[in-house]
Amino acid sequence: MTSTTAETVPGAHMAAEIAAQPGVFRGLLAHRAEIAAVAAQIARRRPRFVLFAARGSSDHGALYAKYLTEVLLQLPAGLVSPSTTTLYGAQPDLTDVLWVSVSQSGGSPDLVEATESARKRGALTVAVTNTPDSPLNQVTELSVDIGAGKELAVAATKTYSATLLALYLLIDAVRGGTAEHAANIGDLADSALTLAEPAVAEAVQRYRFANRVVTTGRGYSSATAAEAALKLAETSYLSARAYSGADLLHGPVAAVDSETAVLAITSAGKGGAAMREVLEVVQGRGADICAVGSAADEVAAAFRIGVPATAEELSPVLEILPVQRLALGLALARGGDPDNPRGLNKVTKTR
Amino acid sequence: MTSTTAETVPGAHMAAEIAAQPGVFRGLLAHRAEIAAVAAQIARRRPRFVLFAARGSSDHGALYAKYLTEVLLQLPAGLVSPSTTTLYGAQPDLTDVLWVSVSQSGGSPDLVEATESARKRGALTVAVTNTPDSPLNQVTELSVDIGAGKELAVAATKTYSATLLALYLLIDAVRGGTAEHAANIGDLADSALTLAEPAVAEAVQRYRFANRVVTTGRGYSSATAAEAALKLAETSYLSARAYSGADLLHGPVAAVDSETAVLAITSAGKGGAAMREVLEVVQGRGADICAVGSAADEVAAAFRIGVPATAEELSPVLEILPVQRLALGLALARGGDPDNPRGLNKVTKTR
Repeated sequence: MTSTTAETVPGAHMAAEIAAQPGVFRGLLAHRAEIAAVAAQIARRRPRFVLFAARGSSDHGALYAKYLTEVLLQLPAGLVSPSTTTLYGAQPDLTDVLWVSVSQSGGSPDLVEATESARKRGALTVAVTNTPDSPLNQVTELSVDIGAGKELAVAATKTYSATLLALYLLIDAVRGGTAEHAANIGDLADSALTLAEPAVAEAVQRYRFANRVVTTGRGYSSATAAEAALKLAETSYLSARAYSGADLLHGPVAAVDSETAVLAITSAGKGGAAMREVLEVVQGRGADICAVGSAADEVAAAFRIGVPATAEELSPVLEILPVQRLALGLALARGGDPDNPRGLNKVTKTR
Repeated sequence: MTSTTAETVPGAHMAAEIAAQPGVFRGLLAHRAEIAAVAAQIARRRPRFVLFAARGSSDHGALYAKYLTEVLLQLPAGLVSPSTTTLYGAQPDLTDVLWVSVSQSGGSPDLVEATESARKRGALTVAVTNTPDSPLNQVTELSVDIGAGKELAVAATKTYSATLLALYLLIDAVRGGTAEHAANIGDLADSALTLAEPAVAEAVQRYRFANRVVTTGRGYSSATAAEAALKLAETSYLSARAYSGADLLHGPVAAVDSETAVLAITSAGKGGAAMREVLEVVQGRGADICAVGSAADEVAAAFRIGVPATAEELSPVLEILPVQRLALGLALARGGDPDNPRGLNKVTKTR
């Protein structure tokens, strides 16, 4: 017989960190005034363009924030490739630019270097991290602490959702909002986790032998689809790939067949509504569709995981919760340890 | 016995269109003055920020152009999600913005709508298409014709590479360049296709049973990696997924093992050099690395497909050629018809 401790039970850290998210959300809301103070400084500078720099899961947080920026702030926005600075030495004039670097560790050297360079070139720089004393925070003028607490599992869960909520609170405050839609996000997250539990358990059995997974969403939920594919790939070693619903129909749908599991993010709102026609095509090709979201009941699907309804722009904060549970469950069912995926590093050291 | 005509031989159109690329490149260079005239109008307006709008393969052309914009024009740039306009009604102020819509057909309704809206909000709009009388060209102030001729295969090949070259010629001319590095691109493309033929034939046999493919590249070659994954997925129904070299090490490398074929784009220059450490990690995990590019000999790999050297910023125009041949070969070996992939539409009709 072997004895197991909390540290050696496979997936124990990931499970605990998934469960901690409602509390993390409440903690972030309790610090909304600090985030609003950062937002006020941003609003005073009246940026005309917004650039986001990030890698991995944080890059999906940045994608979400890009939608928020375009729709809520009515500002053009882009995702930066740090390598144009760190490899190719680009030195664009960034006057009037808000530069937001998103990184839970704040320790990736290429991100730090690109951010430092952006500030020298006139950008107002903000670090959104889970590590307030990180190298990244040293080089930016402003900082937002996502306050998720130490993350022990290598696969990001609570730092991802906390990044999303922090970016929402920041951007909402820049436009003068009071985050009213986020007021009960902690309770909704509790419900999301409880509600999803039986469905996720069933989904783990249904998809444990799947080898080909496509994830898809539209609008705000594109970020959830991207994060879902990454989480499945890095914890369960599934071959998972994300497409926006529009891009999926443009070509890759050719590779979707009865051997494909399609994880479709479908929340109430315009993005979810636009998924209906996409999923009809996908279903017509014989794929097994697992719909996740508050509008999961309203689309063609073979299996559904419901999520409590919220304002559409906040739905990515909730949608990801059952997906994380599914990734954890599949990893365990397939014999892996999502706390220690083979070969995963917590901090990217590439330049 | 069955009789076959050019139209019914599987892959005949795709093969012909791949082979046509050197001539298409020469034709584009012959029209450089027209592209330079468009560039002069752009330069006169002194844009401060550049946004690219595209879908599918054109999106990878836009990714390439984003690097060119940041490095050669020293301007911040972003890729647009048309859905923020078409689904969510975002109306950002686009004064001082150059908006480049990239689409071979110029017929995607969401792209046309987003572009028309951008022009009304102050952007200088340019259409880069293969269809000069398309709906997209009707709504933009400026147009660049990629001049690739009608494309009959559903999978984009010559329209992809011609889009890249047209974007290079445009951006180079905006900065006052004379496209000297592109002068012999037609001959280099001829060499690339001839040089690659035996290696591609061998690679088809080597990878025909591969089910899991990861494509990767850094810097300019990120676009090639993205296009390679799409091309393999839509013609050969492989589960192929692209990661920038930096993102790959950040997490998804966990899913790379001895059952994974890794297509690594490695051209001479800074992006290729930065791939060395990435590929050492990947090789250490037992993956089968197929290196494609002018620096394929300089990285860890099990198999190599050489490409003639060129200026690094032009290498994506050449790197994609053997990859297209590989996609064609694998599709045929696996019993598909890449001219008529199941379910692929030439024009995206999503909104």
